[in-house]
Amino acid sequence: MTKEKELVFGHKNPDTDAVVAAIAYSHLQNERGFNTEAVALGEPNDETKFVFDKFDYKFPRIISAANGEVKSVMLVDHNESQQSLDDIADLNVTHVVDHHRIANFETANPLYYRAEPLGCTSTILWKMYAEQDVEIPANLAGMMASAIISDTLLLKSPTTTDQDKAAVESLAMTAGIDYESYGLEMLKAGTNLDSKSTKELIDMDAKSFDMNGNSVRIAQVNTVDVPETLKREADFTADIKAENEAEGYNLFVLLITNILTSDTTGLVLGDEKAVSVFENALNTKVEDNKASLPGVVSRKKQIVPPLNEKF
Amino acid sequence: MTKEKELVFGHKNPDTDAVVAAIAYSHLQNERGFNTEAVALGEPNDETKFVFDKFDYKFPRIISAANGEVKSVMLVDHNESQQSLDDIADLNVTHVVDHHRIANFETANPLYYRAEPLGCTSTILWKMYAEQDVEIPANLAGMMASAIISDTLLLKSPTTTDQDKAAVESLAMTAGIDYESYGLEMLKAGTNLDSKSTKELIDMDAKSFDMNGNSVRIAQVNTVDVPETLKREADFTADIKAENEAEGYNLFVLLITNILTSDTTGLVLGDEKAVSVFENALNTKVEDNKASLPGVVSRKKQIVPPLNEKF
Repeated sequence: MTKEKELVFGHKNPDTDAVVAAIAYSHLQNERGFNTEAVALGEPNDETKFVFDKFDYKFPRIISAANGEVKSVMLVDHNESQQSLDDIADLNVTHVVDHHRIANFETANPLYYRAEPLGCTSTILWKMYAEQDVEIPANLAGMMASAIISDTLLLKSPTTTDQDKAAVESLAMTAGIDYESYGLEMLKAGTNLDSKSTKELIDMDAKSFDMNGNSVRIAQVNTVDVPETLKREADFTADIKAENEAEGYNLFVLLITNILTSDTTGLVLGDEKAVSVFENALNTKVEDNKASLPGVVSRKKQIVPPLNEKF
Repeated sequence: MTKEKELVFGHKNPDTDAVVAAIAYSHLQNERGFNTEAVALGEPNDETKFVFDKFDYKFPRIISAANGEVKSVMLVDHNESQQSLDDIADLNVTHVVDHHRIANFETANPLYYRAEPLGCTSTILWKMYAEQDVEIPANLAGMMASAIISDTLLLKSPTTTDQDKAAVESLAMTAGIDYESYGLEMLKAGTNLDSKSTKELIDMDAKSFDMNGNSVRIAQVNTVDVPETLKREADFTADIKAENEAEGYNLFVLLITNILTSDTTGLVLGDEKAVSVFENALNTKVEDNKASLPGVVSRKKQIVPPLNEKF
């Protein structure tokens, strides 16, 4: 019996794991007799482009809706409907493999759902290949190692587990790469900030928060050279001030994160009271609009909760 | 490091699988180093009592809320919050093992979630014991075989998969039982309806669903003689009407299922629109509050999905 075709995909604004996990799961399912195609819900970022070049993979077809092409789909690396295909509500979700919380997700039918609180979806897939006794091709192994390195910042993020470490070591061996030197090279490929304007950089990965009536904006850029990035400090500062004025933010924080040392320098601009709340919350001093935040890499885990509490 | 204690439980109005799966998962997790206790969210039904007697197990402690006893819990055989502990919203769900659709379920944190569209949660657990290389004690194997026989009506329900069959055969061998003769005896033990009031029978195996804003209650009783059961139709009808009034249900369906012929007669009461949605969804006529549902035995597979779609 030929199975009906299904699409497999990760979240919108895809990062490396979102696309690689779709390819890895599609391959595993096809080996097991399913009929699937991996697709992507957006263009690759610079890091992801580097990975696909390195392992000689073609980037999947990009779609934003299924538009009746298939009835059933498989999700990887997400479940919340706002992060998925535009017409996800009209589709039957048969399989999910994910490492996020579950929210805004509902099905009419029983399904296959595999979630584990690990650092990366590709780590779960690495386990599933072993369980199903399916071999991982060398170049796919390199892609999966890349996804784990990306999600865990080379196994340094606080989300990293022992299983992520074991997976990267095993996949790197299959791929024939030295994951530490390769990983650094790959992460660096995602830190090419020169091609973007300072205005683009403060918008690229920025989120707004309401904290007890205070309007707080927190943006983040990754780099391997903070002083190099700070050569454009005057432009960053001018753009942030203009944005605070235009949008009425009480506080704007630009996190400039060094992916090599897992430290962050914050550019912190806002009204006097808000800046002093920031100093208090993060136990730091803001001098010349800059604050040193050693060991900080995660906005979600290390910045938002203490700020929220102090406001 | 001693792990913090967690409770493991199945849904309210527990059937055999809800309680057995909690015991089986708690045992597996404790063997793996967790610190858990299996509890039940209600009294055992006659079939479940028969199973616990047969395999000499003590029925777990019964609770309806955690009341601060633990911070974290593991769910089996359900995920929808209205089927769970009263204070589930205040608890951290760390693990779920289930074979139902996902709905009304949301977490703040990543978790371990294992769902498969199989006939019974105990079948998934049988696979997990094998994957983790943990031995199933003989009397627990007998309980798990009973749960699968119960959920699949002796492997006759359309929810039955090859994996459920393989699980029952393997577990019956471990338990040293002839599953066919034992299974029939066990199912019959659950069909002694005379000892219960009609009010008890409509509550015994009943689940609530929110379907696009409509409050739907679906109960099921097993019998070997539908006309005998319908001698109390007037009492059933009065009790259901009173419950619809008291609880604000838009629709109440009592499935009276003949376990020998795998056919069902539905008692269907509710507001006019909801009853007509039922007729449309199940392609049947409701006359004198009754609908003939030949070949229907599974609430999950044959009643909930079409109803959900039409609402």
